[in-house]
Amino acid sequence: MTEIEHDIDPETGPGGTPAPEDETGQDDQGYTLDRRKVSAILYAVDAEDREELIAQMEPLHAADIADLLEQINAYDRRRLVLLYDLEFDGEILSELNESIREEVISLLTPGVLQDAVRELDSDDVVDLVEYLEEEQQEAVLDALEDSDRVAVEQALSYPEESAGRLMQREVVAVPEFWTVGQAIDMMREREDLPEQFYHVILIDPKMRPVAHVTLGKLMASPRRTALSEITEPGFRTIPAQQDEGDVAYAFNQYHIISAPVVDEDERLVGVITIDDAMIVLDEEHEEDIMRLAGVGEGNLNDRVSETLKQRLPWLAVNLLTAVLASLVISVFDETIAQFVALAVLMPIVASMGGNAGTQSLTVAVRAIATKDLTGSNVWRVIRRELAVGLLNGLAFALTMALLAILWFGNLQIALVLAVAMVINLAVAGLAGIGVPVLLDKLKVDPALASGTFVTTVTDVVGFFAFLGLAGLVLL
Amino acid sequence: MTEIEHDIDPETGPGGTPAPEDETGQDDQGYTLDRRKVSAILYAVDAEDREELIAQMEPLHAADIADLLEQINAYDRRRLVLLYDLEFDGEILSELNESIREEVISLLTPGVLQDAVRELDSDDVVDLVEYLEEEQQEAVLDALEDSDRVAVEQALSYPEESAGRLMQREVVAVPEFWTVGQAIDMMREREDLPEQFYHVILIDPKMRPVAHVTLGKLMASPRRTALSEITEPGFRTIPAQQDEGDVAYAFNQYHIISAPVVDEDERLVGVITIDDAMIVLDEEHEEDIMRLAGVGEGNLNDRVSETLKQRLPWLAVNLLTAVLASLVISVFDETIAQFVALAVLMPIVASMGGNAGTQSLTVAVRAIATKDLTGSNVWRVIRRELAVGLLNGLAFALTMALLAILWFGNLQIALVLAVAMVINLAVAGLAGIGVPVLLDKLKVDPALASGTFVTTVTDVVGFFAFLGLAGLVLL
Repeated sequence: MTEIEHDIDPETGPGGTPAPEDETGQDDQGYTLDRRKVSAILYAVDAEDREELIAQMEPLHAADIADLLEQINAYDRRRLVLLYDLEFDGEILSELNESIREEVISLLTPGVLQDAVRELDSDDVVDLVEYLEEEQQEAVLDALEDSDRVAVEQALSYPEESAGRLMQREVVAVPEFWTVGQAIDMMREREDLPEQFYHVILIDPKMRPVAHVTLGKLMASPRRTALSEITEPGFRTIPAQQDEGDVAYAFNQYHIISAPVVDEDERLVGVITIDDAMIVLDEEHEEDIMRLAGVGEGNLNDRVSETLKQRLPWLAVNLLTAVLASLVISVFDETIAQFVALAVLMPIVASMGGNAGTQSLTVAVRAIATKDLTGSNVWRVIRRELAVGLLNGLAFALTMALLAILWFGNLQIALVLAVAMVINLAVAGLAGIGVPVLLDKLKVDPALASGTFVTTVTDVVGFFAFLGLAGLVLL
Repeated sequence: MTEIEHDIDPETGPGGTPAPEDETGQDDQGYTLDRRKVSAILYAVDAEDREELIAQMEPLHAADIADLLEQINAYDRRRLVLLYDLEFDGEILSELNESIREEVISLLTPGVLQDAVRELDSDDVVDLVEYLEEEQQEAVLDALEDSDRVAVEQALSYPEESAGRLMQREVVAVPEFWTVGQAIDMMREREDLPEQFYHVILIDPKMRPVAHVTLGKLMASPRRTALSEITEPGFRTIPAQQDEGDVAYAFNQYHIISAPVVDEDERLVGVITIDDAMIVLDEEHEEDIMRLAGVGEGNLNDRVSETLKQRLPWLAVNLLTAVLASLVISVFDETIAQFVALAVLMPIVASMGGNAGTQSLTVAVRAIATKDLTGSNVWRVIRRELAVGLLNGLAFALTMALLAILWFGNLQIALVLAVAMVINLAVAGLAGIGVPVLLDKLKVDPALASGTFVTTVTDVVGFFAFLGLAGLVLL
């Protein structure tokens, strides 16, 4: 029952099968919906065979059913939801992507919607309704029992993306002076224990959490043990107003499993568990990646019009910066007219600068998000980026100079290209770290805006250095 | 003790304080090391005041101490570690970034190292040593007690980044026919219960896990209840050979808290808990972001030489593709010599294409990673990207044509620019989705390589379309 050592031969390792070859996560491993499953389900929908549909869907987790609904088209989705009817589970709604969620809710009859949402915990209902349009939000809230509705509305009164919205209100808390036996007896008697909980919270007479005890310790300790003797080290509470991103950061940084949420008077109002924090961490990452690429909130299920709305503004900003770079080029149009080689080579300088800048800025944006880039080390990191930029610049300056000599047989152009490359890669390193740090100081999300600024800098500096030097040297 | 409703006024919400303004996560909220703390610690190090150092470090979590060590420079780090000496905790090593970890381990005296690693769980030691150089790995393993050493070496015999490496070997498992009372008595008697566990695993006579029971349910049920009556739905086991990325995906997708790990004969060999899965999920995201930007494994603490080694190869690839684009331009050098406006405008076409392509490919790379882009919807998504590309292309074609007329007063150039823009943005949409899907089919990580391919396509197509059409129309 303790460590299991029965079947591992230290010589050959734990079995002869090789590691999965596929590193991209496409190795199905029984997780994803495979194509055959999707076909079988759509076939049942086509045949309007409700029993077959239910049989096919039965083994699927709600998260997989949600993925299925996201992957099929709107016409099939509608037919499937209508045929599935009363089998439709509240969990599926929770798992659905927001853009599809509204569509699916509008397909459900009031009776089905009521059954579906009544089986959810109040924090799941909050998550479900918080971004719905008002009319749909009302429809869901109306489907709840009165007491649940009050709980959900109270949760919605916390700011968006706060700990108060994330927490569950069902907690297991006992007076700090209780014993293990008292706590266990209370839990045996209580009928409405939360579905998932990992700690018993100890509270003082003013309802302030002072410590917590893991269920494992509780289980392993004699009944007469005082709870205060077996509390966990590193106990933390979370303010209800705290941003959910900071909550996720704390869970990840300190390996927290669950933590009580408190109001401004430090009184217990709920509890957040690691599974909720993991979802937030995942969303924050997703947001960072999407913002770095200028894709707003984009996802695969958005319609063409929504996707356009997300991407067009970003491209418009990029157009402005591209025109700015063109203006720089147009200053040197006479030089270019005389030496067309400049027009051929100039995109190389800009492209290398843009890439080097993106490298620096990505490392910087991540380091700011993980709180690893701080006042204590920012100057050291800036020096490092400058050094790396200069060294990369020198390496590529040599390469490019050789290339220019071989290609155009012109030493002067080679020299100009080399110098411009060093300048632009050094600037790229500095801008790559400087822009996100500055934006962060100005309370702008560096993931959102750094990219444009940095490539504008590298384009403008790249063209200006290359063409400007060329003008001086060649004319 | 159930839901807490004592202090929330539905009218005014749970308190009057506004949400934290800072959205970048820099709002300290007591989590990050602040600058003053770092200064105070470095001051104690300067003064060689060991007691003050210990007093300053005492309230810090091991994760924060690790961050501190990463943020200060190598000279201060050395002095701090030597002064801190026997206070040095094994957890700090676990939390340290790998590049700094080796350095710190080499600073520890054998005695300190031994104390530090002996207090860690075997899975933490595995995590600690798996990427150390052989000599250091030996030093750490030698510091362990024999039984722990065997456990660690057995774990290391699993493939890198597999569930077998991630799992802890300490499990709580009981025969499937036991009652609640028997399970609780066993736990009371057992002295070596794991630090953290959330389920009691039920196993059959062949040691195969068949179900599990949460500690909460165990606690709330009468002693005579059969464990088999209170098992959790949706029970899953994890093969020991499974890639840790797939493990993290499953935990996130199915909201798993802990799951048993099994060998090829389905026998129980360990357990993975959500906190470990969360760390992996975080690392996988980090890797995706870094790969998308072409920064390999980069982090803030790498030395200049390491950073160069990570970034230079990627820039070299970019240089090749930039030269390819230049070759396309050079085909049209005579056209450019006659119409310098082309040289001024051509980077705009390429830049817009590159940005639009990056948008599409980022959405596609994420969708592949989250298994949302599958055979069932890939064609629909490709059609959508093409439609978005065409529409964006038309919008910017109009804008650019107007701009070209105003700037150069040349209708033909405006027309060419507009057509090239539509072509390039449509191609960007197609390449942005097509390249990652194709790479994934070829078992290459799309995050790693898509960017270069897509921008090469948009550069080449952009220059070719713009300059080629110009040659046809203008000459």
